[in-house]
Amino acid sequence: MRISVEKSLFSKILTHQQSLINRRSTTVPILSHILIEANYSKQGEPILSVHGTDMEMSLWEKEVIKPFESPGSSVVCAHLLYEIVRKIDDQWVTLEGFEDYVTIRGGAAEFRLPTLPVAEFPLMETQDLPFELSIHPGLLADVIKDTSFCIATEETRYALAGTCFHFRENNQKEIFCNVVATDGHRLALSQLTNIVINEPKIPVGASLLVIGRRTIQSMVKLLESDPGEQVSFRFSSNQISLQGTKFQFFSRLLIDRFPDYMSAIPQNHIFSVKFDPKELMKSLDRVGMVIEERTRSVKLMFHPNGLTLSANSAQGSAKEVVKISYDGEEFTLIFNIRYLSEICQHSRGNIMTMKATKGQNPVVFQDVNRETLYVLMPISN
Amino acid sequence: MRISVEKSLFSKILTHQQSLINRRSTTVPILSHILIEANYSKQGEPILSVHGTDMEMSLWEKEVIKPFESPGSSVVCAHLLYEIVRKIDDQWVTLEGFEDYVTIRGGAAEFRLPTLPVAEFPLMETQDLPFELSIHPGLLADVIKDTSFCIATEETRYALAGTCFHFRENNQKEIFCNVVATDGHRLALSQLTNIVINEPKIPVGASLLVIGRRTIQSMVKLLESDPGEQVSFRFSSNQISLQGTKFQFFSRLLIDRFPDYMSAIPQNHIFSVKFDPKELMKSLDRVGMVIEERTRSVKLMFHPNGLTLSANSAQGSAKEVVKISYDGEEFTLIFNIRYLSEICQHSRGNIMTMKATKGQNPVVFQDVNRETLYVLMPISN
Repeated sequence: MRISVEKSLFSKILTHQQSLINRRSTTVPILSHILIEANYSKQGEPILSVHGTDMEMSLWEKEVIKPFESPGSSVVCAHLLYEIVRKIDDQWVTLEGFEDYVTIRGGAAEFRLPTLPVAEFPLMETQDLPFELSIHPGLLADVIKDTSFCIATEETRYALAGTCFHFRENNQKEIFCNVVATDGHRLALSQLTNIVINEPKIPVGASLLVIGRRTIQSMVKLLESDPGEQVSFRFSSNQISLQGTKFQFFSRLLIDRFPDYMSAIPQNHIFSVKFDPKELMKSLDRVGMVIEERTRSVKLMFHPNGLTLSANSAQGSAKEVVKISYDGEEFTLIFNIRYLSEICQHSRGNIMTMKATKGQNPVVFQDVNRETLYVLMPISN
Repeated sequence: MRISVEKSLFSKILTHQQSLINRRSTTVPILSHILIEANYSKQGEPILSVHGTDMEMSLWEKEVIKPFESPGSSVVCAHLLYEIVRKIDDQWVTLEGFEDYVTIRGGAAEFRLPTLPVAEFPLMETQDLPFELSIHPGLLADVIKDTSFCIATEETRYALAGTCFHFRENNQKEIFCNVVATDGHRLALSQLTNIVINEPKIPVGASLLVIGRRTIQSMVKLLESDPGEQVSFRFSSNQISLQGTKFQFFSRLLIDRFPDYMSAIPQNHIFSVKFDPKELMKSLDRVGMVIEERTRSVKLMFHPNGLTLSANSAQGSAKEVVKISYDGEEFTLIFNIRYLSEICQHSRGNIMTMKATKGQNPVVFQDVNRETLYVLMPISN
């Protein structure tokens, strides 16, 4: 193999692999490596293909490059190749594969990296996935980003360690998909509507997919860098795939069942308050300065046209009055300040509605004119 | 006490204190606090004074503020006050002192911080320092920054844990000061020349001052933010002080003796090479990517008009040819890559000269047209 690739293009491809390659895979060293292949397609196009896997996820990326003299393939350290290409002081990078090493050249620099046998490069078992929908990559990235900050981080909550895609049918027989993440304290629900799926009936087993945190992170990066209008999202009961303009991505799903999230969303409310989420976030940031890590609770007292935030600790106390649109009776709620702040941070508008009942019941937050909703449990007094 | 202070001014004063206050002083809590005083001067000016100490260093900063109703003083947590003032959403901050707390107000926010008794605030013992020189703050900051990256970081090398200011007299009876830092592997020497000191004779005990690393860091911050043309640098055999436009700073000195640095600077050389330090730094950065943390050595092979850098490890190998100005015989040196890179980084010009001899002898680096020099020991083959 001897190819010349534009630095910016090569760098972009290698960046995508970084999110799924396990850099410190010392027990299985080949998992910290990627497979680089140069070959002519059936149509005679010179193609560079890069493949990486951690055995849970697999990513192939293909690009047409300038014609090369000799095809071939090599398995090299993903991280080091990425760093080298990124720092090369030239527009073009030349990669040449030999028996047990590759050379990388660009500018005045030349690198030699050892390779591992191509035959030993692991292939994740992938299936033909029966269900498919086409979707704008930005739209899919948005519903994932709107929800995924609520994924559980505690190791023990394995069933909540991912984002749930739940395909359902409404009364008009239209398919929609609830995109849900929760860590037991808070919940985020977004929706993909007016979906067209190639198969009219999705069996129960494949209608609820739980996609793990690392897969979610890799998906967002791939979707955000895809220049196309559509990606193909395919799924079965235990795998998903994404096919974009230049890449193909596979991932296993979490096998745990996802909890019944619909029952966590309150249907009624007594109080309804409108506020500016960006302003509330700044106020929370200030009031939160006096809170020590362990307590982390902030008190919200709602009164006509005002919300008084207050926080206390041995370090000191703080309060701040925030302007809101509310004219009902006074009431008080206590929240984990970080959870409340993150909801405000993920809002996309200037007005958010909060709906609450009396007592220790979940509270609903929603941007005006937007389907995504957040549910947050208050803390008891 | 009840005062209103401009946020930007108050924030700047509190920033200076952050570099010397020990934020996590749990055994002596008052050391994580600062003393805030508001008083009218003899001339009737309304003065805010802020004082902090870690018992090794002491910093007073005074500013004329807008007239206030009631003077007074309070001892509050330095870090929290700094964070609060920084985040307040208003141009003005109001501070009000009570029996055992202060309130801080700005925008819609109000904070209450507990205070400690003013009478218990520790005062570092300071002396009347006999020797004084006036110097431009930027000039003093520069000689410190040029050298202090060579201060030893190993805990055991206590005698090298600071920058040495060595006052001497040349043949024309002019006083100059060598500013030196070394960690035993490398050495940096800068100079203050044409110095005028108030006392014509400095006794031996006070002519060599070793200023500890933390003091050095605080000094740079104070000097760089001083808007004046001159600061007063005073010293005795065991203390220094800096007096700027608005601040007064004291620090104890390290009592250890500094090694005889002059003998470490080679006087002769065989090879002399000119190179662009910024270009060499970029090349070292690239070649260094293949080096594992433990070895960290880079090989430099000098040949007419070229320097070949090379590095090797189990991860791979790298080489790069750098253009240099040299026409002598070929020779090779091996350096710690980080040390060599840091010397290039601290250069201020486009041309640096390297002077070396054959064998394992120290190598001298110097910017063209500049007094500061660096000495670096090569690594044996």
